[in-house]
Amino acid sequence: MSKKIRLGMVGGGEGAFIGAVHRIASRIDDRYELIAGALSSDPERAARSAENLGIHSSRSYSTFTEMAIAEKQREDGIDAVSIVTPNHMHFPVAKAFLEQGIAVISDKPLTVSLEEALELEEIVKESGCFFAVTHNYTGYPLVRQAKHMVETGELGNIRLVQVEYVQDWLTVKEEDGGNKQAEWRTDPTRSGPGGCLGDIGTHAFNLARFISGLKVEEVSADLTSFLPGRQVDDNVHVMMRLEGQAKGMLWSSQVAPGNENNLKIRIYGDKGGLEWHQENPNKLIFSPFGEPSRTLTRAGHGLSDEANRLIRTPAGHPEGYLEGFANIYTDIADALLECQAGASPESVMKLIPDIEAGISGMKFINSVISSSQENGKWVKLDA
Amino acid sequence: MSKKIRLGMVGGGEGAFIGAVHRIASRIDDRYELIAGALSSDPERAARSAENLGIHSSRSYSTFTEMAIAEKQREDGIDAVSIVTPNHMHFPVAKAFLEQGIAVISDKPLTVSLEEALELEEIVKESGCFFAVTHNYTGYPLVRQAKHMVETGELGNIRLVQVEYVQDWLTVKEEDGGNKQAEWRTDPTRSGPGGCLGDIGTHAFNLARFISGLKVEEVSADLTSFLPGRQVDDNVHVMMRLEGQAKGMLWSSQVAPGNENNLKIRIYGDKGGLEWHQENPNKLIFSPFGEPSRTLTRAGHGLSDEANRLIRTPAGHPEGYLEGFANIYTDIADALLECQAGASPESVMKLIPDIEAGISGMKFINSVISSSQENGKWVKLDA
Amino acid sequence: MSKKIRLGMVGGGEGAFIGAVHRIASRIDDRYELIAGALSSDPERAARSAENLGIHSSRSYSTFTEMAIAEKQREDGIDAVSIVTPNHMHFPVAKAFLEQGIAVISDKPLTVSLEEALELEEIVKESGCFFAVTHNYTGYPLVRQAKHMVETGELGNIRLVQVEYVQDWLTVKEEDGGNKQAEWRTDPTRSGPGGCLGDIGTHAFNLARFISGLKVEEVSADLTSFLPGRQVDDNVHVMMRLEGQAKGMLWSSQVAPGNENNLKIRIYGDKGGLEWHQENPNKLIFSPFGEPSRTLTRAGHGLSDEANRLIRTPAGHPEGYLEGFANIYTDIADALLECQAGASPESVMKLIPDIEAGISGMKFINSVISSSQENGKWVKLDA
Amino acid sequence: MSKKIRLGMVGGGEGAFIGAVHRIASRIDDRYELIAGALSSDPERAARSAENLGIHSSRSYSTFTEMAIAEKQREDGIDAVSIVTPNHMHFPVAKAFLEQGIAVISDKPLTVSLEEALELEEIVKESGCFFAVTHNYTGYPLVRQAKHMVETGELGNIRLVQVEYVQDWLTVKEEDGGNKQAEWRTDPTRSGPGGCLGDIGTHAFNLARFISGLKVEEVSADLTSFLPGRQVDDNVHVMMRLEGQAKGMLWSSQVAPGNENNLKIRIYGDKGGLEWHQENPNKLIFSPFGEPSRTLTRAGHGLSDEANRLIRTPAGHPEGYLEGFANIYTDIADALLECQAGASPESVMKLIPDIEAGISGMKFINSVISSSQENGKWVKLDA
Repeated sequence: MSKKIRLGMVGGGEGAFIGAVHRIASRIDDRYELIAGALSSDPERAARSAENLGIHSSRSYSTFTEMAIAEKQREDGIDAVSIVTPNHMHFPVAKAFLEQGIAVISDKPLTVSLEEALELEEIVKESGCFFAVTHNYTGYPLVRQAKHMVETGELGNIRLVQVEYVQDWLTVKEEDGGNKQAEWRTDPTRSGPGGCLGDIGTHAFNLARFISGLKVEEVSADLTSFLPGRQVDDNVHVMMRLEGQAKGMLWSSQVAPGNENNLKIRIYGDKGGLEWHQENPNKLIFSPFGEPSRTLTRAGHGLSDEANRLIRTPAGHPEGYLEGFANIYTDIADALLECQAGASPESVMKLIPDIEAGISGMKFINSVISSSQENGKWVKLDA
Repeated sequence: MSKKIRLGMVGGGEGAFIGAVHRIASRIDDRYELIAGALSSDPERAARSAENLGIHSSRSYSTFTEMAIAEKQREDGIDAVSIVTPNHMHFPVAKAFLEQGIAVISDKPLTVSLEEALELEEIVKESGCFFAVTHNYTGYPLVRQAKHMVETGELGNIRLVQVEYVQDWLTVKEEDGGNKQAEWRTDPTRSGPGGCLGDIGTHAFNLARFISGLKVEEVSADLTSFLPGRQVDDNVHVMMRLEGQAKGMLWSSQVAPGNENNLKIRIYGDKGGLEWHQENPNKLIFSPFGEPSRTLTRAGHGLSDEANRLIRTPAGHPEGYLEGFANIYTDIADALLECQAGASPESVMKLIPDIEAGISGMKFINSVISSSQENGKWVKLDA
Repeated sequence: MSKKIRLGMVGGGEGAFIGAVHRIASRIDDRYELIAGALSSDPERAARSAENLGIHSSRSYSTFTEMAIAEKQREDGIDAVSIVTPNHMHFPVAKAFLEQGIAVISDKPLTVSLEEALELEEIVKESGCFFAVTHNYTGYPLVRQAKHMVETGELGNIRLVQVEYVQDWLTVKEEDGGNKQAEWRTDPTRSGPGGCLGDIGTHAFNLARFISGLKVEEVSADLTSFLPGRQVDDNVHVMMRLEGQAKGMLWSSQVAPGNENNLKIRIYGDKGGLEWHQENPNKLIFSPFGEPSRTLTRAGHGLSDEANRLIRTPAGHPEGYLEGFANIYTDIADALLECQAGASPESVMKLIPDIEAGISGMKFINSVISSSQENGKWVKLDA
Repeated sequence: MSKKIRLGMVGGGEGAFIGAVHRIASRIDDRYELIAGALSSDPERAARSAENLGIHSSRSYSTFTEMAIAEKQREDGIDAVSIVTPNHMHFPVAKAFLEQGIAVISDKPLTVSLEEALELEEIVKESGCFFAVTHNYTGYPLVRQAKHMVETGELGNIRLVQVEYVQDWLTVKEEDGGNKQAEWRTDPTRSGPGGCLGDIGTHAFNLARFISGLKVEEVSADLTSFLPGRQVDDNVHVMMRLEGQAKGMLWSSQVAPGNENNLKIRIYGDKGGLEWHQENPNKLIFSPFGEPSRTLTRAGHGLSDEANRLIRTPAGHPEGYLEGFANIYTDIADALLECQAGASPESVMKLIPDIEAGISGMKFINSVISSSQENGKWVKLDA
């Protein structure tokens, strides 16, 4: 059996959402043991949460700073920490652990400002530590397949990238009704200046970037906040110009009734097109120009090694969000072991979303906001 | 039996596409007889086409001017003419018939320039004639249902209009290979300055306008011509601002492999959302916020009178493009009879696409081109 | 222009359903003129219906016998008659016209008993007349494509045929509430002994027979009438054994809420499978064993000549039930012209559903009822 | 934190499929620790597999008998054993552990004969032990929702149950090519007399039984083995008569190209219908008679407490096969804790599939085989 990764967690206590997802993702392939945590800024909740998760009280910390220092000093200290706090805490927590030489697995977006993101990049470099950001949608096997098909030229030269991530839960003023998730996500001091943009728009951007392999060079954007008094955008309209003369559109919204987590991407080149939906992620439609469309299925016929590497069950047995997330975690476990065996962090990233991916996301947020503030002026970026 | 409408046709001879569609649409409900035509600018082809269509040789004309004059003079002259030529001929043909007092049913786009369109509007007014433009997608029963639901407030205040019309046939340089349809559609002297924009982008715009009931107030656009040497756009990216603070996006393309006639609209208000696809037009998804989505079906349960008026077969027996087109033609037949009985053309239009719809389309084309030429600057319009 | 077929109609007056469908189907390609009729057994309704349809009063008949004789004697008498009455009238009407040497286009099922059907076969043979039965679902282009793929071996040896035709409108006792369609369809004296079985089960059977090219050799059936007092079956369960060791199941029901006209067929051989749904008939899923499934589309890439022959609009513009029905009518028009030019009726049938198809349907009904009456005993047939 | 269940496993070593699934299912909610195993009948493979799974060598056993005895004697012995062997080993292994008073979680089918199954039932009763059989499809939240809707009368009286489970992997003679999964599944000495019937037909039966709440009273069946030399059925056709005058059909096949794990159920009552597909399990279509169909989604609006209890992620984030399986395991963990606290096994089963479910499956297999051997004669059962 491979050595298990000793994992700590910051955030993710009672009432949180994404922390539980990270924990399940880390368990699915049995590569981690969760042994330490600063699960909440509320000490009582932190302790109670730790107990419920089977974390020994001696390793349940009141603050992340304390945890970073204490874990560093232990012989059996954690190998890595998962950061699953609201956005504004990503940076300070990551900094604290990196400075102790502890590997970091951070939720997205990377930080709440590009400045912080670039500073974090420096800290990562100086630390020599492994750092990953959980752009989890890249962990779906058929997303890997799509990327592979673009790379191997099955679509020809890419011309168009149409991506959207649409929800409906903020159609009403959810943040006024005691919904904690809504509260911090619509509070710019905790979520950063982008609302919908930072929360799910970055996922859409990252997915487009990952599959197409193309940087976005310019954006023209129109951000809206439809609900009176809402402090952040809840709808994102972006036109994009990408490397190699490609064009694209990105739509992200949290006010479109009937959409749950409707993340969808379509990519077209001069030889073919691809279409993938997160809500039914076990299908990938491939349309070679001039031929009937083909439905590729997870674990089905005609897939690449990379797509086939990431499955646990036969074709037709749906794998979903948690398994895609687990693929990221499991690849990180392999990477961490390689680092412990002496490999450089850079050399083990392969397709794991890295700090560059995180910074690209922050540049995207920044540029979209700038463009929207300047009434849609095309703003250049390198992301 | 209602008196049949005596119909003439300009364009639509051998090798044409849309002429045959108009003829089938006029026949489905048996309300027209096609008795005269100037079917081609090539006299031999015109004659041969007329013979094949059962038009008597005495009423097969070499030129539309000749036809307009001759038909006017006959006691049994045509009641209306269908114009199914390439775009640049819409204006002169319409003018010729209107000046003879003959009703006009014109294909879209209205003309090849806004100037012509406005001039045509004057001519229509002066003539006192009936004038319709065949924005046929508005004839689908579930499109009528969608419009009805917006009007009766089932979606609440409209916030978002996302529309797309996507094809793939111009992924390669089809116009260089002898494809007549591709040739004129990519030739700005015959199609007007908009390529994909005028050909199918206007349909998308018109559909959004029709269902939402909202004018577009501003557009920011990015037009592309992906194929080297192609003289018109083949991809259209537009951000829209609509009446009442609504926002939208329009994507139209003819270079997206795997898309045939993928016209799709999604509309969202503060109380619910709607989704409709032309390629499977017998379904309309309605998502009241906070409840499960419902699938409305053509001729199925819970539809408005207007949607139910336009059906010929029971639910589950698919009706398609030709029946939607026929709905427009049949409503026009009713309207023409009312005019003949003394009603004013304005009073009989109801939901028939009129010259205002045509002019709106031209304004949209114009503004999108202006915006794109000014690198996406927001351009105001009243359409 | 081809000579138009002079058409008469028996049945199809006010309040009827299928008559209007036949009329539209005959008009779509402009190959017929409807000039005579005995549209209702109620003389007033017959006359009024004729007037509404533009049939001259001199050719609106009170009885079909009178019509057959009178039309025979006219120089400009009808070329063919469409029979669109309730089932029990199919036989006597067909007989009357065939005996006058007039071609017959009959709705299905052929008759209300196998005895009648076999007698009709004799009459047809003796008459030397053209005779077709409108198993209209065989007119869909992608149904032709499916048949072609079976014939050319793309599925290999056929092993399985799974077919179903499911509706929901008789979930309640519709026939007690004044619904004329429900009344005669649940009245064995008018519909024949099969209820759902004769009404739509025969369509499912015919479709399976048409595409697979395989006769059904044995059936084991369980018929049910779920509504108390209903005189005919409203649910049909059949296991089938077909030629060449193939097996199959047929399910037909009129009491399955949520199903409108859900006719669906799946066929599997040792090399591949096919799936087609009537409610979205512009798609055909082809699954070659060991490869990704492909979605063939009407008028799209990779279709046979026969499938391509039957289209009017480009791919992505949905054609539906009426166009499929029109394909049958248009092929019949061609066939009738060939007959008039001296060809034998047998030589012109090609893929037009003929009396053999009708008799097969009757044998199927008969055998299914026998099997069900004998508690599911396997009953042999040659259909 | 709840006490973790100490789990052992028999079967599931290298090269096996379902063992890994059970392990992931047990890990997802972190309620088990796998600490003992007899993972293979090949001692070397057993040891190697144990090491890979982190099972201490002292608790990796060569035989299940040895394991049952040894674990019984340990103070820290396992609380339960998961049996994931080929079918013929289910009985002896279960017997061995039950006789030591150890709880059993067995894969399906229960045994390879009804005699064994009934004997096992006695053993379970005598042992007083907890016993579950992993009919995992009942763990999907929307399957629970469907059951709930049937129970609360939303469908009215059930009339029809149409279920199918279709695959394609045995379209060719896979068992001759070294595929271990195919080898034992087509070998009646290891899989039992039912091939496809026992492997997946029982899942379809169980799902129908679970959701409808109705026993099957009679079956008429036609089993086929399409491949020459194949020793078990690879296609299953069954007509069913259920409690309360309901009827149904079950189709199961492993030779239908294009089908991966196409388990699908449709249930109809006099007030509405339901439809659910395993391959996209996050949707449930509900069609109240006379109203538009509604799409219920996992974690979406309008679900029962039972369906909502079984989710980990928000609506629109697909959960799949492994999460459904995990729901069974997690409920079993709760049940085992209750037993350890003194509750009787019977009192804690709730919706966990129990030995009765397993015996029903065996009765179904038996009766279907009997019916098929008697050429489709209706065979009574009480299952």
